[in-house]
Parts: sequence; C-alpha cells; structure tokens
Amino acid sequence: MGNSFGKLFKITTFGESHGVALGVIIEGCPAGLTIDEEKIRLEMQRRKPGQSKITTQRKEEDEIEILSGVFEGKSTGTPIGIVIRNADQKSKDYSHISDKFRPSHADYTYFEKYGIRDYRGGGRSSARETAARVAGGAIAKQLLEHYGVSIQAYVSQVGSLRLEKPYQEMNLALAEENIVRCPDPEVADQMIQLIDSVRLERDTIGGVVSCVITNTPAGIGEPVFDRLHAELGKAMLSINAVKGFEYGSGFEGITMKGSEHNDAFFKEGDKVKTKTNYSGGIQGGISNGEDIYFKVAFKPVATIMQDQESINEAGETIIVSGKGRHDPCVVPRAVPIVEAMAALVIADNILLAKSNKL
Amino acid sequence: MGNSFGKLFKITTFGESHGVALGVIIEGCPAGLTIDEEKIRLEMQRRKPGQSKITTQRKEEDEIEILSGVFEGKSTGTPIGIVIRNADQKSKDYSHISDKFRPSHADYTYFEKYGIRDYRGGGRSSARETAARVAGGAIAKQLLEHYGVSIQAYVSQVGSLRLEKPYQEMNLALAEENIVRCPDPEVADQMIQLIDSVRLERDTIGGVVSCVITNTPAGIGEPVFDRLHAELGKAMLSINAVKGFEYGSGFEGITMKGSEHNDAFFKEGDKVKTKTNYSGGIQGGISNGEDIYFKVAFKPVATIMQDQESINEAGETIIVSGKGRHDPCVVPRAVPIVEAMAALVIADNILLAKSNKL
Amino acid sequence: MGNSFGKLFKITTFGESHGVALGVIIEGCPAGLTIDEEKIRLEMQRRKPGQSKITTQRKEEDEIEILSGVFEGKSTGTPIGIVIRNADQKSKDYSHISDKFRPSHADYTYFEKYGIRDYRGGGRSSARETAARVAGGAIAKQLLEHYGVSIQAYVSQVGSLRLEKPYQEMNLALAEENIVRCPDPEVADQMIQLIDSVRLERDTIGGVVSCVITNTPAGIGEPVFDRLHAELGKAMLSINAVKGFEYGSGFEGITMKGSEHNDAFFKEGDKVKTKTNYSGGIQGGISNGEDIYFKVAFKPVATIMQDQESINEAGETIIVSGKGRHDPCVVPRAVPIVEAMAALVIADNILLAKSNKL
Amino acid sequence: MGNSFGKLFKITTFGESHGVALGVIIEGCPAGLTIDEEKIRLEMQRRKPGQSKITTQRKEEDEIEILSGVFEGKSTGTPIGIVIRNADQKSKDYSHISDKFRPSHADYTYFEKYGIRDYRGGGRSSARETAARVAGGAIAKQLLEHYGVSIQAYVSQVGSLRLEKPYQEMNLALAEENIVRCPDPEVADQMIQLIDSVRLERDTIGGVVSCVITNTPAGIGEPVFDRLHAELGKAMLSINAVKGFEYGSGFEGITMKGSEHNDAFFKEGDKVKTKTNYSGGIQGGISNGEDIYFKVAFKPVATIMQDQESINEAGETIIVSGKGRHDPCVVPRAVPIVEAMAALVIADNILLAKSNKL
Repeated sequence: MGNSFGKLFKITTFGESHGVALGVIIEGCPAGLTIDEEKIRLEMQRRKPGQSKITTQRKEEDEIEILSGVFEGKSTGTPIGIVIRNADQKSKDYSHISDKFRPSHADYTYFEKYGIRDYRGGGRSSARETAARVAGGAIAKQLLEHYGVSIQAYVSQVGSLRLEKPYQEMNLALAEENIVRCPDPEVADQMIQLIDSVRLERDTIGGVVSCVITNTPAGIGEPVFDRLHAELGKAMLSINAVKGFEYGSGFEGITMKGSEHNDAFFKEGDKVKTKTNYSGGIQGGISNGEDIYFKVAFKPVATIMQDQESINEAGETIIVSGKGRHDPCVVPRAVPIVEAMAALVIADNILLAKSNKL
Repeated sequence: MGNSFGKLFKITTFGESHGVALGVIIEGCPAGLTIDEEKIRLEMQRRKPGQSKITTQRKEEDEIEILSGVFEGKSTGTPIGIVIRNADQKSKDYSHISDKFRPSHADYTYFEKYGIRDYRGGGRSSARETAARVAGGAIAKQLLEHYGVSIQAYVSQVGSLRLEKPYQEMNLALAEENIVRCPDPEVADQMIQLIDSVRLERDTIGGVVSCVITNTPAGIGEPVFDRLHAELGKAMLSINAVKGFEYGSGFEGITMKGSEHNDAFFKEGDKVKTKTNYSGGIQGGISNGEDIYFKVAFKPVATIMQDQESINEAGETIIVSGKGRHDPCVVPRAVPIVEAMAALVIADNILLAKSNKL
Repeated sequence: MGNSFGKLFKITTFGESHGVALGVIIEGCPAGLTIDEEKIRLEMQRRKPGQSKITTQRKEEDEIEILSGVFEGKSTGTPIGIVIRNADQKSKDYSHISDKFRPSHADYTYFEKYGIRDYRGGGRSSARETAARVAGGAIAKQLLEHYGVSIQAYVSQVGSLRLEKPYQEMNLALAEENIVRCPDPEVADQMIQLIDSVRLERDTIGGVVSCVITNTPAGIGEPVFDRLHAELGKAMLSINAVKGFEYGSGFEGITMKGSEHNDAFFKEGDKVKTKTNYSGGIQGGISNGEDIYFKVAFKPVATIMQDQESINEAGETIIVSGKGRHDPCVVPRAVPIVEAMAALVIADNILLAKSNKL
Repeated sequence: MGNSFGKLFKITTFGESHGVALGVIIEGCPAGLTIDEEKIRLEMQRRKPGQSKITTQRKEEDEIEILSGVFEGKSTGTPIGIVIRNADQKSKDYSHISDKFRPSHADYTYFEKYGIRDYRGGGRSSARETAARVAGGAIAKQLLEHYGVSIQAYVSQVGSLRLEKPYQEMNLALAEENIVRCPDPEVADQMIQLIDSVRLERDTIGGVVSCVITNTPAGIGEPVFDRLHAELGKAMLSINAVKGFEYGSGFEGITMKGSEHNDAFFKEGDKVKTKTNYSGGIQGGISNGEDIYFKVAFKPVATIMQDQESINEAGETIIVSGKGRHDPCVVPRAVPIVEAMAALVIADNILLAKSNKL
C-alpha cells in the first residue's frame, strides 16, 4: 500500500535509494498529448543532487528512460513507464549503519513494520524516491499546460529568515535564477549565506516552500473527503521531511473575524471573482477560479555531520557518526517536488471533474 | 468521488444538511467487536448543535439508527449502516438564498461543478455531514479501545488566545469539563468570554484543535504516499473550515537545527523510546510508539449575522443578510470530529499493518 | 471489503436478510439527471418475492426511500442514499438453524471467516442483498437511457429446457409478458411447467439468464485488467448462485476456427460495423458499437424442501429440514438483477471513458 | 485505469508489444519472503514464445530484471519492480497494418477510444502484456507456497477434442511433460496433432484451460461484490482471447436439481469436508477448504495466415494479409498465465482475510 497517488491520473513509484533503479508508472494521461522528454529532463535537473554548493555533493545524473506509453512523441492512453537507474550506488558506504537506528530517520520504524530493511541510504524511505515523483509530475505539468494551468513553487523561508512579500508583488519566475530558489534576490542571498553557515557547522536547518497555482478552472475538486486542499495537503505531507501544510489564510486565518476573512464575490466582465482571497482559491474543497496558494513546512534534514547517540537492532547504545554527502537544507531541491505533487493533484482532479455533469 | 475514507476500515457518508437523512456505512470493522450504541450516542452528543451558549442554538437531536452489521451486540464483519434523520429541516428558511452565492461558502463552487445545487443550508457542503463521520468514528474508537490506543483532542487556541502549556503538563480529560473543551480551566474561561463577545458582535472567529494519540504500536502507517501523517493531514483537511495541519514540531520545527530536532533513541526496559519527540510519534510515515500529536487550524465560520455584498447565479450584485442560528466559533464542536477522523486513520492503518509480515 | 462496485459510478450496499434494513449508496451519478422514482419502484417489483406461483411466496414489499442526492427531482452529483426496510422479518423462523451449516449455503464459510454470523436467513450472504443492487441499477439505467443505451435480459434456459432461437429473431420485450421472463411464449410455458413440477417435488433447478446491451458507443471499456467483459463477468459472478459467465461466442467459440470466428469490419454509411458478431460487441476489452451479449449460469437454489444431512458448529451430524418459502428456480427473479449489474458496468465505463482523450 | 489487479497484493503492468520494455510492479508482498529468481524465470519459460512447434516461432527470451523490493534475497515489503526488455522488436514488420483494422483484434476499438494507437503488434492490447503478469504471478506463487496453497492448470480441450476424465483421476503434474500441457498423454498427442493440422491450414483454433487450486484455507474471499469466484472470473476474463469462465459445476450445474447439487458437510477428523464438491470449493464467495476448480474458454486466435477483408482508418475496404509468426492455438502458453492470475487472486485474498477477526 501507499506507492500510488491519484485516481484517474495516477502515479505508482518503486525503487530504493541504493537499489538497481527507481521508476514510475503514470496511468490515465489522456491520449494525444505531446510528451516532451526534454521537459521531463529539465525537472529532473531541478531536483537532482549536486546542483550547487548548498545541496548535497552526491552525484546522480538521474537519466530517465521511457519504456512505454509514448508512441511517435504522443501519449497513447496506456501507462507511461519511466525508469531512472541508480548510477552512484556505492552500497559499501552504508555497512557501518546496517544495524543502527539513525535518529529521526525511518530505520527503526521500517524495522518494526517489516522485520527486515534495506539499510542502504534509507532504502525506500529515502528522499531519492521523489525523483520518480518528479518524472511523473513532469507529465502532469505537460497536461496542465494543455489546460492552461500553471504552477510555481519557491522557497519562502529558511530557518527564521522569512520572505515577507506577498506572492502577488514578486516575479516568481525569478526563483529559478538563484540556487536557493527564492524569487527575491536579496533575501535569496541571505538564505544562501544562512544555509552555507549551517553547512559549515555540519548541521542542517528547516524551511518553507510556498506554491501558487494559477488558472485552475472553477469547479475542480471532489466534495467531502477528497476536497482539493485535502488532496494537496496529503500530497505535500507525503514528501520526505514535511511537517505542516496550510493553504489560503492558513494558521494566520485563525485570528481573523469572519467579517474580515470572508471573500466577497463580484463579477468582472464574464468572470466571477473574489475581492480578497483568504480562501486560497478553494471553497468547500472545490476551486473557484482564483489563485490556489499554500505553504509546506520542512524540518531540518535528519542526517547531520555530527556524532549522535542512538541504539542498534540489539538495543545497545551506539554512536551514529555523520558521514556521506547530504543536504544542509532540503528546500531548494524540494521546490520541483512540491510542484510535481501539486501538478498531479490538479491533473487528477481536472480529469475527475469531466464526469460531474451529464 | 470523495464520499469514502479509509482502505480496510472505511467509511462512506451520504446526506445533505436539509435532506431526509444523513448516513454512514462502516466497512471493514473486524468481526466480534462489542458495539456499544451508548458510546456512539455520547460522541453524537459531543458534536450536536445547541449544547451551550457558545454553539449554534439550532436543535438537532442526532438520533442514530443502526440498520445492519451488528448482531446480538457484536460486529459481524459486514458493513454497519447507520442513519441520522434530519429532524429540524425547516427548508423554508433557505429560500431567500436559493440563487445567492454566500461569501466563502461552497455555493458558487458547487454550482460551477454540478450546474445544480441543493441550496438548503449548504446541502452536501454543510458541516452537518460531519455527524455521519462522528458516528463512524465512534465505531473506530471502540476498535482502538480493543487495541489499547486512545485519542484526546482539545481546543488549544481561539483567535489569538493561545493555550501555551504543552500537552504533557495538562490533564487532557479536563477538556470535557467546560463548554469550549480546553483542558486548562482558566484559559477555557477566557476563550468562552472571547467567543461570547464575538457572538454579540454578530461575527465569528477561528481557532485550533490539538490532538494527542497515545499507545499506537510501532510500525503502523504505510510508506511513501500514504504516510501516517499524510493520512492524518488529509483526514483533518477534509473537515469543514480547516485551513492548516501540522504534526510534531510542525511549522515551528522550521527554525530548528537538525542537531536539536533529531530525537535520540534509547531503550527503557523492553521498550524503544526517544528522548525528545519532535517527530510527533511518526518517522518516515510510520509510527514509532511515541505519542502522535498534531494541530488543526480552523478559519472563522463563513456564516455571520451581518449583511454582506455578493452576487447571485445571474451575476447580479445582491446582499446576503445574516440569518439563522450558527456557531460563532467552530472549534468546541470540532473536537469530537477531529477525534473521529483520527480514530478512522489509526484503525485503518492498524488493519493494513496486519499483512506487512509473513 | 467487497461491498462496493464501480469506480466512477459506484454503488455500496449494506444490510442483512433479516436485519432492520438494506440500503445502497450510489456515487458518481452526474448532476442534472432526472430521477424517476417510479422507475426504481418498477425494477424493485420485477425482483421482489411473491410475484407469481413459480417464485417464493415470501412477502416483501421492498419499498424504497431516497434519503439524499436528489433535489427537486434531479441528481445533484452527491451520493444518492436509498434504504429498503425489511418488513417481513420473522427472525423466529431461523432459530432452528442457528448453529447448523446448511449444505451449499454460506453458513460454514462465513463462520470460518468471521467466527460469528447472523444466521437469520443467511444474513449478509442472502440474495436479499440484491434488492439494494436493483435500486442502484435502476439509477444506472436512467443514466444509460440518457446516453441511448438499453439493456434487456431474459431467461434462456431452465434445467435442460433451452431456448434455441438467437436473440435477434425474437422480440425480447415479450420476456416481461410471462412469469418466467422468456421472450418465446411457447418455451415460456414449458419452462413454467418445469419449474412448477420441480416445486412440487420440493426441489429446485438451475437456469440461464441471457442479456443483450444495445447501442453502447464504441470505445467504452478499459484495457488489460478491467476489460469491459471482465467487469461484466465479475458483476454477474457476484450475483448469488451464479456459476458461469460467457460472452459473444463463449464456450461454443472454442470449437471454431479463427477464419470462421473473426468478425469482418465493413462500413455502412457513417458507421463501422462487423458482418458477424462472435466478439459479442467487445474487442480487446473495449466496445466496438455492436450488440454486447452474454449468458449467466445459475445453479439450483440450495434451499430445498427436503431433509438433508449436515453438521453443526460443534461438528455433530444433524438434519437440516426444508422449511420456509423459497424459489424453486431463481432465474425469473434474476433477470432484473442481471440488468441492474450490467447497467452499473456500462454506466461506470461510459464515465471512465470521458477522460480518454484530451 | 485497468492496469492494476489486486487490493493488498497488487500488480500493475505497463508496456507494449513492440515498445522498449514491459514491466510489472508487485505491491503488498509481505516482508521476509525468500524470492527465488529462478522460479520466476521458470514461469517465464513456460509462457515464452518459440517453445515448440505448436506455438509461435517468434523469439523472445523474456529475461527479467528485478529493479527493487528485494534485498539480500528477501522481499522487504516495498514494491518489487521487474522489467522485461523487448528483444525481438522488428517494428518494421507492422508498417503494412499501421492504418488497418485487423478483424477481431483491438485495433478499431483502441482507435475509437484513444484516437491514436501504437499499431505495432497490437501495442498494449497484445497478449505480450501477459509476460508481465506471469512475472508478478510467480511472486504470488512463492507466497502461496509459504501458505501451503498450490495451483495447477492444464489444457482440457482443443477445438472439440475434450479431455473427459475428471481432474481427481489424473496426475496433473504430467501436463508439463508434453508441449500441449494436457495431463493425459494420449489426449495430449491428439491435441498436438489437431493444432498442427490447423497450423498447416494457416488457421487457428480455440481451447479450454482448466485449473485446480488445492489447500486454500477456509474463510478466504470477500462477500458480496468481491466473491472469490468473481475475482477469479474477472482475473481470467482479463486474459487475452478469453470468452468464458465457469467454476464448480459451472454451466452443467444448470440442469441439476438442488437435491443432487447440494454438497453435504461431514467431519473427517478435525476437518470439515463436503461429500461432493459441485460448489467448487467456494460457498457464498468464500473458500470452504475443498479444491477450487474452474474452466476458462479461449477463442481461436484472431491472427490467421490467410487474407481477410476489412477496412482502414479512412473507412476504405482493404485486405489484411496473414504475416508474421503466431500461435495456432493459444491454450498451451495460456496455462502459466491462468496459474499466475489465480495465484494473484488467492494471495490477495489471503492477505485481505487477515483483518476479518479481531
């Protein structure tokens, strides 16, 4: 259980951090969509390790191979299978932790659950799995392009360093111009410096990825349990290291009165709009056509370059020593993952909505 | 789509605010569980309107009738069907808004989605649907009792009035001793006063429900997309008026360093424990046996007793006037709903885990 | 598990033979469909016991009550809840078999599975559950009417008495003119006589229901595992007492050569047709626009009015004595059930096909 | 939709006949199972083309590569990904049919459904997809071995040549001793001769695969819609060229009286047994511990070595000429496919049953 996401537009991923390969099966992509492999590669590049000094120096080329579902450059309606070989396996690196439970990792819980675990780099619990999601999300993004929907995520907080400007006042595309993926160049510089200093302390730090989805048609999302924001929330919370999700007014909306918080409808030409958008583009779990925006909180990465006390499978106290090449802060590389998961949710819900009316 | 929650332990709800009845089908409850109807009634009482001066004065007795799945007081493994008749229908009250889009309600989005809507009290989008969830959750709670798991939610914030004490330092059972369901009697009084003053302003205000789950066995939760906290997050975000979810260190964890945030393992007798619990009892999406705790943010209720500008189906500007009997703050009645949804998630995942090992 | 059928157009049933009520939740019916309650009642009448001398004399009025999902006579897109109260409960009748395993019933298997069972009239395993399916199928039929698809089932065999005429040479509507539901009046008379003689022997006999679906658009059905005929097959095999399913040329197709069996395409006006239709309207699991036809084999009902040796829960040899009011042959009442299940499959697949192309 | 099979033990397949590769993801295999790659290879050998003079002479080595989910020879509980490269692609062979609709193939229906199709060898609709199922089924078989369940399929009919002996009177293992996979050597010889003569006529012929599952524990199978035989039926009907399914007494049971057909229970030592087994080991959709047996009808393969009239995408009358290397009769190679699908159904239902009782 738990390896698939989506109902009509669905991905299933497989693969471990240090196994032979990762992969993703994308089902439900409508037939006739032009599949641009270059765009998939671009998304893979945005996520891959070793991009800059503030990400892990581990090298993975993350080359994709499409095995099925695309014919003469177009989707055929059949499942699109993609594999990503693990080039930089180096399993030997992990023998020293084979029976150790690293603090705040999934070593202990997987062991309790399954009684056996692939200890190499976290196995299935490693964030390496998100490479498969990004490949799947890249197809979803191409479908959304067809429907005119666009998604832009960016880093809005690192540690206590917070980008205060509302998204409407920035050019979000600028996020891709710097290595931390913050659309405000000045704040970006500070963030980079902060991450770099944390890295030198052999420590890690948390952060926030914000995301804006524009041009979702009104009427998308399923009522009751599968509300659009509940699906977005689940999608985001399923990403490694995520601890919180809020959309629209979020946790800050708590302190508001209903009279301030309510978004008044008005008509502009043919279009129904709202004067404010505390609803975050979603009302009763269904899109209203306004921008959908949300925030995702990431904890500091658990792998630090310091010695830590823990226990092993036998219950003995041991030392987990910091080794390997890891991210001091996960948010820059999390940006394309957040976008991928958002794209999957919207694509799925657009297809689901096709059967709402006669 | 979207009327069911859960995989092995699953509920499906139906019914509209002012239709004939609401109902819930509970599937997957293992056979042989003693079903105590009184306990279901108790949960219904905790959620029902008209309990106190700070909740809506609308009267609904919320009488449940079990139609199937229970034989001689025990679950038989077949679906348990429960209906709750809508006693206090009064549909006439709603004719004045039949073509109006109330601000920050689901009127417009349902209309866009379906082209038709039951405008009486919000129809399916009304929080009245949660009565069915509470009935289903009451069965899940009885199953969890059998497994020794317990769940306690409480109000931890109303507007900017915040309960600062950590849950470990309070007797959470005290939450049921006051009408706002806050376990600190002093803060409870302040909260009640605040809600009452907002009510007199004919306005509404937001709040936070916190929840603690104790004694979940280690190894519960599915990897990757269906992480235990992702399911909890989806469950909570599917409740009406929820805008955010965080677990463990949550949004505050962002500002921490990995070296502080990591939860060190140690062994106490036979039991593996962690010194701190920023992980919130879940690592890699799987329970580690520590307390699971999380927070749910509720926006101010959209229905206010004031006139508001909006538009109708024809796109004309109209006034929506505040009428009826509504909650000035939703969190006191949301407490049993949060518990119900949490119980459903844990029950489902306990059953799912039965097939993890040979 | 196992109480739902369908993906987008989905029913979930609940209820036991002698419980308070049966019910069905219909999800995914597109909004705006006129729901004619009279048509649901008509289907219920076709299935209900006590219709004629060759069916059980048990009386159940099978009155339906719609609880949700219909507003001002139209579907709203939200789940349609329907309950059917069990009027003629008479549980006392069943005390004599409370610990006995009736031969070829589900008494023993439910007991092994759940360790507990509602022994009254078979509980959940009783064919009474199909009343809920017929109610759900009646909604599906109304949706199919909207799409121009029609479904007609009829009895084509009772014991070794077989209707030899191909369906194209009969007026299938005549099936509803006699109590056995065979469209050939002469064969119908013989079937009625046969069933009546079996009834007098206090025995039961098997039969076949054939079904023809006309006007399904080409392109309906999902590839690989969810082939349209695989879904039809599962739907039929899920009906009580069914032992076999075949479509198109079926078991007789085995003996044919490919050169005879292949259906040659040709064009008639704008329409692609096939000269023969051994494919049964389905190729590669997807409809080709020709008639879909299939056969469903029903075993002789297990309840006979004779004494039978068996064992009880304690493993002791006991006698199960024939009591009560039961069908000597199930096929006349199975006709509307077969139609209901077929309607559900086609409705679901028409909705699924909406997302095949861009 | 339609690329997955199973609920807890689930496979998802991808890949086209002449694409880069086929693949299968196996989810839900309990952790700790020893995975014997050799056994997977053996099943692949049983299905692969070119095994004998009565199967297609096409060469595909069907080499499997395990990409994930197995660590140090054991399942880890995470998805097992397997790919099978298409060695013998030769796409050029298919250009002559790129716009032609081959009779009784899925060319036309896929075109209607998707508006685009991979015409090379049938693309996704090709029986080549079953290679992925056999790989997945080989894992299921290893799980069933652990639970003591065994499955044996064999050819029981080719054209009108029918093996009359009941399965209990034969050594089914002998089926693997001859190229047609019939356990009666004499009948096998006749079948081989018949297929060979059909092959020389450049034609094809249908057949039946029978299957026996022994030692399934009592209590396996889900009630109502997901009855064990309904799942088996769907599984079998989802195999290419299948036109019918029956279990237990099947279509012949129709002509029996209830008094003959009922299987009387008795106790033998500790074990509950039935004197006859017309139920086919399944009562009320749930296993009773007796042998489960069923038959699957395969039509004559649609590809024949003769010229046939048809139309093309433009609606023009054209000739489809017989080319390539195809099976004159599909049943010998269908035996391992039937076993694979049966293994998947039983494995899934054994896992599902783990949550039936407290």
